[in-house]
This record gives sequence, C-alpha cells and structure tokens, in this order.
Amino acid sequence: MVVSQLRNMIPEPALRRLPWYLACARLRLAKGENSLSSTQIAREVGVEASVVAKDLSYVAVTGRTRVGYDLPALVSHLEEVLQFGQVHRAFLFGVGNLGGALMQDSGLRQFGLDIVAGFDAKYELSGTSINRIPVHHISRFPELQKQMGVKIGVLTVPVGVAQETAEMLVAQGVRAIWNFTPLRIRLPEDVVVQNTSIYAHLALMYNRMQAEAQDGLLGGYGS
Amino acid sequence: MVVSQLRNMIPEPALRRLPWYLACARLRLAKGENSLSSTQIAREVGVEASVVAKDLSYVAVTGRTRVGYDLPALVSHLEEVLQFGQVHRAFLFGVGNLGGALMQDSGLRQFGLDIVAGFDAKYELSGTSINRIPVHHISRFPELQKQMGVKIGVLTVPVGVAQETAEMLVAQGVRAIWNFTPLRIRLPEDVVVQNTSIYAHLALMYNRMQAEAQDGLLGGYGS
Repeated sequence: MVVSQLRNMIPEPALRRLPWYLACARLRLAKGENSLSSTQIAREVGVEASVVAKDLSYVAVTGRTRVGYDLPALVSHLEEVLQFGQVHRAFLFGVGNLGGALMQDSGLRQFGLDIVAGFDAKYELSGTSINRIPVHHISRFPELQKQMGVKIGVLTVPVGVAQETAEMLVAQGVRAIWNFTPLRIRLPEDVVVQNTSIYAHLALMYNRMQAEAQDGLLGGYGS
Repeated sequence: MVVSQLRNMIPEPALRRLPWYLACARLRLAKGENSLSSTQIAREVGVEASVVAKDLSYVAVTGRTRVGYDLPALVSHLEEVLQFGQVHRAFLFGVGNLGGALMQDSGLRQFGLDIVAGFDAKYELSGTSINRIPVHHISRFPELQKQMGVKIGVLTVPVGVAQETAEMLVAQGVRAIWNFTPLRIRLPEDVVVQNTSIYAHLALMYNRMQAEAQDGLLGGYGS
C-alpha cells in the first residue's frame, strides 16, 4: 500500500533506471544470492552508487549497512512499482511488419502488457491470428472496445494515418498510446503518449558509429 | 560532401528530433506538396519553430522566407544525414520472441538496417530462417564474422548472457551494439551501445496512466 501511494512520486529519470536495477537483481537472485548492495548494482549498471540508493529509496526499500538489500524483497518491490506483475490489456493497430512482430513477442506479457487483439484496415487480415491473438478489421474496433474497454493502444500503423488513428482510439476511450510510428502525434494532455521510435535510435547509432570511426582515424583525438 | 562533414556536429537532441521532421516531410511530399516551412513542421510535431529551424540548420538546409524548405531536397538531405538510405549490415543475437520479431520486421531495412543473419545457442534453430534471413548456431559466429566483417550486433539474448555475448561480439570486431535487453551492458568506450529498452518504456507508460487516473479522480488537481 505504501508502495502504491509512493509510486507517482518517482521522478521519471529514476523510473527509467529502475528496470536496469530489476534486471540486475533478477540475475543475482537467479544465481541464488540473497542480498545486493547499491554499490554492487552501481558497478553492474554503470550508475553512481548514491544515485542507485536514492532511486531505490523511492521504491520504499531501505538497504541495511554492510548487508545490502534483501534480494527477493527488492525484486518484488521493483516489479510492483514498475507494474510489470499486473495485466494491462492493449489493442494493437496496424498489423504490418512491426505490429505483427510485437504480437509475436510474448516477452511483452512478462512486462505486464497483454495484447488482446490486433486491428488492420486490410480486409484479408480479418479473421487471421498471430501468436493466438485475433486480428480484426479496423471497422470492428468501436464494437469490441465497447465490450472490452481497453485502455492502451499500441500504434504501429503507417505514418500517414497515425494521427487520425490515434484520435479515433482516444474518441473510443483509449487513455494511453504506445506510439511506434516515427510521427509525433498530438492528443489531449490527459492522454498518455509513450513514444518508442526504434528507427530513430538507428540514426543515433549510425551517427555515433561514424564519429567513432573518425576518432579512430584521428588516433582517438576528439573522443 | 558538406552534409557529410557536418554530420557529426549535430547534437544528439537535434538528431533525436530529425526523424520526426523527416516523417512529417515525407507525409507532405506524398501528398504532392513542394515546400514546407519550419512553422508548419513545428505545428505538426509539437516543437518550437525556432528549434526546428536551428535543428534543420545542422542539416545544411536553409529555408527561404515565406516559401519554406524545398520539400524534395529536405527529405533527401534528412535521409542522408540520418543515414537511412545507406545499407548497414547487422547480425542479430538471440532468436527468441523479440529477436525473431525484429527479423520479421522488414521495416528496419527502410531505415538502413539489414539483418543478414541471426545466431542462437539453441541447436534446433540452426539451419532455419525467418523472413528469408538464415539462423545459425552461435558457435558459427566467429567464422561468419571473419567472412563478413559485420559492424553492428543486435542484442536480443536473455539478460543472463547479455554481458558475455556483447563482449564476445566486440572481441570479434563488432563496433556497435543495439541493445534490446533490459541490462546495461558495459563495454570499452569506443564501442557504440544504443540501448532500446522497449520494456522500460512500458513502466513509464503505466506510471503516467496511473498518475492521469488519479488526477482524474482529483478533478484535475496536480496535473
């Protein structure tokens, strides 16, 4: 209960780091260890120990001096705070390459996301399924949404219809959009938009690779 | 040539926004338009017009007053700077749910990433293929890497072997790791690590949804 109340007070930078600590803690737990110090976490994830301790203080876990955090408790607290243990139902819109791939990825369920149906404008996809998740024609969305009241829409439609699709979802009661399109969609402020532009990350990676290659040619100057 | 030389001077925050402008510009171009102003881009992507103009100045494109940017030139300059038009060959490691999904995603090729083979420790996957991309046993990686000299490794292995796999890739000449695992891997500074923790984004989305739901109950206070 205390954990739940504290949840919204966690600043986003801390929230971004918590999954790293969770991954690290799960690994240690799987190896049969019982406790983990913020110094150990810090070393493994490459964050200052003081930052780790501060971040974990938001999770309402306190480490004991010399002993560190109780590992099973740390893992379960982190999972609770990150809401990975809950089931969040989602509809996916745009069963193309990336959309189909996300439906294939059962790993999402381990992080609390349950894609319960996919929708697409292509009639030939209606009635098919991917990874046992049904695919419907987009025209059936309002009817199914009335029955199911799904709060999360995963947006993997072509960029040209991203804005209008997002608006339609919101009109039907969707409260959060996980936007995989490279477009920045514009929605009312009380709708949550989480942008995950994996293609934009490619541009960052290419650019850093080129910078490293040039540094290499220059004998490391400028790095 | 001027564009190429300028490329590494683009600050990362600008580089993160350029794909949004590209998406916007491609959309307008597809609609048959010929020019686009920074004000229009700003309105569509939700960024200040002065920021858009500044970002685009790095791309060595200058807009003409009242006319805006020449749209075909803007698109091709952005594609060049973001290196989406080049072919970057990559090996993928860990053909599980997410790895298999990424191999399915032909969309990556449109952004310059060509996954030429997948590797996995499971013997039963060797000799199979996904989306016409062959899957090999991980033990064949050094041999194939000698032949192909691939610079990019897409990392989708289980978190427990992420660090050791990344180190092995680097030992064999891989210069950039696109890390999809929730683990922060530690590598020499001259190796590019691009973290794309899509699961961590889920935690952010869940948290914001909860905050919005509470704001709603409180009649909007605190938002």
